[in-house]
Amino acid sequence: MENLKEEIKIQGELVRKLKTEKADKAKISEEVAKLLELKASLPDEGQKKFVLKTPKGTRDFNPYQMSIREGAFTKIIAAFKRHGAETIDTPVFELKETLTGKYGEDSKLIYDLADQGGELLSLRYDLTVPFARYLAMNKINNIKRYHIAKVYRRDNPAMTRGRYREFYQCDFDIAGQFDPMIPDAECVKIVAEILESLELGDYVVKVNDRKILDGMFAACGVPEDKFRSICSAVDKLDKTFWSDVRAEMIDEKGLDPVAADKIGKYVELKGGLDLVDKLLQDENLMKESSAKQGLEDMKLLLKYCELFGVLDKVSFDLSLARGLDYYTGVIYEAVLLGFSHTPGSESEETIGVGSVAGGGRYDKLVGMFDPKNKVVPCVGVSIGIERIFSILEARAMASEKKGRTTSTEVYVISAQKNMLEHRLQLCKELWDSDIKTEQSYKKNPKMLDQFQACENNGIPLAVIIGDSEIKNNVVKLRIIETRAEREVPRSEMIEEIRKELANL
Amino acid sequence: MENLKEEIKIQGELVRKLKTEKADKAKISEEVAKLLELKASLPDEGQKKFVLKTPKGTRDFNPYQMSIREGAFTKIIAAFKRHGAETIDTPVFELKETLTGKYGEDSKLIYDLADQGGELLSLRYDLTVPFARYLAMNKINNIKRYHIAKVYRRDNPAMTRGRYREFYQCDFDIAGQFDPMIPDAECVKIVAEILESLELGDYVVKVNDRKILDGMFAACGVPEDKFRSICSAVDKLDKTFWSDVRAEMIDEKGLDPVAADKIGKYVELKGGLDLVDKLLQDENLMKESSAKQGLEDMKLLLKYCELFGVLDKVSFDLSLARGLDYYTGVIYEAVLLGFSHTPGSESEETIGVGSVAGGGRYDKLVGMFDPKNKVVPCVGVSIGIERIFSILEARAMASEKKGRTTSTEVYVISAQKNMLEHRLQLCKELWDSDIKTEQSYKKNPKMLDQFQACENNGIPLAVIIGDSEIKNNVVKLRIIETRAEREVPRSEMIEEIRKELANL
Repeated sequence: MENLKEEIKIQGELVRKLKTEKADKAKISEEVAKLLELKASLPDEGQKKFVLKTPKGTRDFNPYQMSIREGAFTKIIAAFKRHGAETIDTPVFELKETLTGKYGEDSKLIYDLADQGGELLSLRYDLTVPFARYLAMNKINNIKRYHIAKVYRRDNPAMTRGRYREFYQCDFDIAGQFDPMIPDAECVKIVAEILESLELGDYVVKVNDRKILDGMFAACGVPEDKFRSICSAVDKLDKTFWSDVRAEMIDEKGLDPVAADKIGKYVELKGGLDLVDKLLQDENLMKESSAKQGLEDMKLLLKYCELFGVLDKVSFDLSLARGLDYYTGVIYEAVLLGFSHTPGSESEETIGVGSVAGGGRYDKLVGMFDPKNKVVPCVGVSIGIERIFSILEARAMASEKKGRTTSTEVYVISAQKNMLEHRLQLCKELWDSDIKTEQSYKKNPKMLDQFQACENNGIPLAVIIGDSEIKNNVVKLRIIETRAEREVPRSEMIEEIRKELANL
Repeated sequence: MENLKEEIKIQGELVRKLKTEKADKAKISEEVAKLLELKASLPDEGQKKFVLKTPKGTRDFNPYQMSIREGAFTKIIAAFKRHGAETIDTPVFELKETLTGKYGEDSKLIYDLADQGGELLSLRYDLTVPFARYLAMNKINNIKRYHIAKVYRRDNPAMTRGRYREFYQCDFDIAGQFDPMIPDAECVKIVAEILESLELGDYVVKVNDRKILDGMFAACGVPEDKFRSICSAVDKLDKTFWSDVRAEMIDEKGLDPVAADKIGKYVELKGGLDLVDKLLQDENLMKESSAKQGLEDMKLLLKYCELFGVLDKVSFDLSLARGLDYYTGVIYEAVLLGFSHTPGSESEETIGVGSVAGGGRYDKLVGMFDPKNKVVPCVGVSIGIERIFSILEARAMASEKKGRTTSTEVYVISAQKNMLEHRLQLCKELWDSDIKTEQSYKKNPKMLDQFQACENNGIPLAVIIGDSEIKNNVVKLRIIETRAEREVPRSEMIEEIRKELANL
C-alpha cells in the first residue's frame, strides 16, 4: 500500500515533468494512462473520496429545526431581557491556560487546537470561565449579562438523549458584591419563567449549597482534600444507584466506608423549609460552620423564592452536587418531571433529557484570573437548550401542522412566457417597499409550478402579471388560500398588497 | 529551572504525606515553609499566574458593542428574509478532509484541532464549503438560505483594519439549476439593499466572471495549469500595485513576461455594458469560448441589475479576481467609496475596510462532495460584517448620544429600610406581567443610588414603595425624566404602568 502510493507519486511527477517540457503528446498520454491505472489499483480511495458526514457528536440544523430553535431562543432572550440583562460575546477558543484547573475531573474533555505555531488554544468548555476571564480582564465588578453561544466537550455523546459534543448554552449570570440570596433567588425565578414560557410541562428546581455539602462531608469524616472528588461522586446520583456511587467513593477515591455510609444517609434527604430547620438541629452538622452558614442561606433563598411565587417548584435536595469544581455556594438544577426517572427503571432515552437547567454561585472564579486575587462574587444559571430543543422538535414532529421556515408574503407570477423583465421590476418594487417577495428563478416558469410554490411554502398572496395586465396597466392579486382574485391599478399595487396582508 | 520544579514536586509530596499521616503540626509547618520558599524562588510564575488576554486575532464584545452588532444583524436578516431565505446551521468544525482542496493557496490558514484520538478536525474557514457539504449530504438540489456564524482563519490579523482570526460571516446563497443570471442578479440587489439599510455611504459593487478571467488568461498565453495561481495574483490588485503583482506572476509563478504584460492591459479595464460590447469585439478574447460565454452572461447580469434598479452601483471590473479556488462564474465585491484608495496614497487603516461584501458563483463545489459528482449550481454573497461593524462602532463612538444596552422599563425602589420583601413581591408581579423590571440587589439601598441606577441605565419609570404607600395600599409611579410622581392603587399598578410606558 505505501509502495503503491510512492509509485503513484513518482509517476505523477513524471507526467508533470513531461507536460512542463511540452513533450510528445502520445508519450504524455501513455504515462497519464499508467498513472490512472496505478490510482485505480489503490483500494477504495478512488471511488469513495471521503466520508460525507459531520464530526462525531455534532449535527447540522435544517431550516425547520432552525425555526424551532429560534422560537425557543426568542422566549429565553425575552426572559433575560425582562430581568434587565445585557449580552456579551467572547471568542470560541481561549488560551489553553485560561481553562486549566477550572473543571476538575472534566478537564480531560476539553478540545485543544493543534499547535500550528503561536499560542496554545482550547475550545471553550462552558461560558462561565470565559465570563470570569472577561470580568477580570476588564476589571468589571458588577454586571448582569446573558450569553448564548456554543461550547465544546469531548464527551461520549448520546445523541438520542440530546447530548452532543457541540452544543449551545444559554447563560444568565449576576456578578457583584450584593446582599445574600437576592440575586440567587432571581436565578430560580428566571428558570421558572423560561420553563413555563416554553410550556415543557411540570418541573422542579432542585437546590443545594456547596457549603452545606462541604459541612456534611466534614461531619461525615471526609478529609478536606477529598471534598471535591467525593462531591463529584455524589453528582452521579442522578444518573446511577447509591450502591455504585458508594463503591466509587470507597474503591476509587479511597474513602472510609463508615464515612460513605454517613453520606448515604444525608443524600437521601429532600424537602423545603422543614428540612432546613431539621438540619439546623443536627448536632454533627452544626459543628461545621460551613454547614450552618449554608443552611442559613438556604432558609433565606427559600423565603425569597416564596415571595417570587416559585417556592412550590423548589426542592432542597442534599443529593444535588453538580460536577464542576468552581461552585462555592448555592447550586441549582431544574428537572422536567415528565422525564424524571428512578435509575434502572426506565429506558436510557428518558434519563438524560430530565435536566434542563443548572448553575450555582461561584464566588472565587473571577479572583483566579485577577493578578491581585480581587474577588467578584457571581451566581448564574445555564439553560439546557439542546435538551429543550429535542423535546420541542419531537413535539413538532408529532403535531399535524408544520410551521413555515420562511416568511415570504408575496410571490410574483407570470401568466405567460416572456414576462421575466416585468417580474424583475415587480420584485424590485415590492422589495423596495419592504414586502417579503419571491419569484421563480426560471425564465418561463409554468403557471401551475408557480402556484404550487405558493402552496408548498405557505405564501399567502400572489401578484400575477400577463399581457392583458400590462395592456391595462394593472396587476392581479390572488389570495392563495381562497383563490380569490382581483385586479388593482399598477400604481396602487403596494398599497393594496399592504391592505391584503393586514387582513390575513 | 527544571531541577527546581522537581524539588518543589518532591517537597509538595512530603507535605501531603505528613498531612495525611496527621504528623506533628510543627513538623508540617516547617516543611510547608520550605515548600513556599522553593515556590517563591520560581521565576515569575508566583506572581503572574497567566496572561489575561483573548487569543491573538480575537476579541470580546461588550454589551455596547453587542447592541451595535445586533442592530446590524437585524437589518441584514431582514433583507435576507425579504428575499425569502431560510436559515441553517452547521458545526463550527468539520472533518479535516471536508476542507481539503477547497481554498487553494489559503489552505495554510486553516485551524486544525489537536489529534486527541478519533477524527481529524478543522475549524470552518468559511460558510460556503460547509453549505456545499450540507447540500450533498442531504441531497438538496434547491434552497435559498442564509447563514450567520463565525469562521476561522490563521491570518496575520490587522485588527485596526477590522481583520480578525475569528470573525462573523453573513452568507446568502441560492442553490439550484435555474436560468442564467436571475439568482446572480438578485445577489447584487440584496447587497445593495443591505448596504443602503446600514447607511454606510456610497458604494460600488464590482462584478466580473471567472469565465471571462480564464478566457483572458488563455488569450494572453497563460498555460491552463497556471490559471488559478495567476488568478490569485490578480486578486491582490486591490491591495497592491500592478508592478508587484506582475513580479509575483513572473518570479514566483514562472509566467512569461509577455503574457503578464498582456494581462496588465486587460486588468486596467472597468465599465458597464459599453465595456462588455467592446470586449465582445476583441478578436483574441473571442477565440476563447469561455470568455465569450462569460461576456454574454455579464450582459444579461447588467441588464437584470438595471431592472432591479441597481445598475448605477455596479462596475464590471476586469481586475476583480477573488482569492478562492471554487468560483466558476460571476464574482462580486462591494466596496465602500468613502474608504476606497489608490495603493500607497492613503494610510494603511483605510485600505482594508473598503471591501464589505463579496461572493460569486460556484457550480462545481457541491459536486466535489457528491459520490456521483452530481452538480448543484450555486451563487451567493457574504456580507463583511466585521468591517461594517468597525465603521458603525467608530460612528457610534463619535456620536454624542450613547445607546442603551438593556431595555428595562421599570425600576422598583424602596423609600425606606426593610422594604426588600415588598420589592421582591412587586418585581414578581411586574415580571409575571411581562414588564421589564429591575431592582437593587442590596437589602437596604439608598434612595439616591436607586434613582441614579435609573438615570445611568436609561430606565424610564420607577415604582416606589414605602411605609405610607403600604399603609394606603398604593405605589408611587415616577417618570424619571420629568421627575413627575403620582400615586396609583396597588391593584391598578400594572394597568397604569402599561399606560405610562405606551406614552413614553
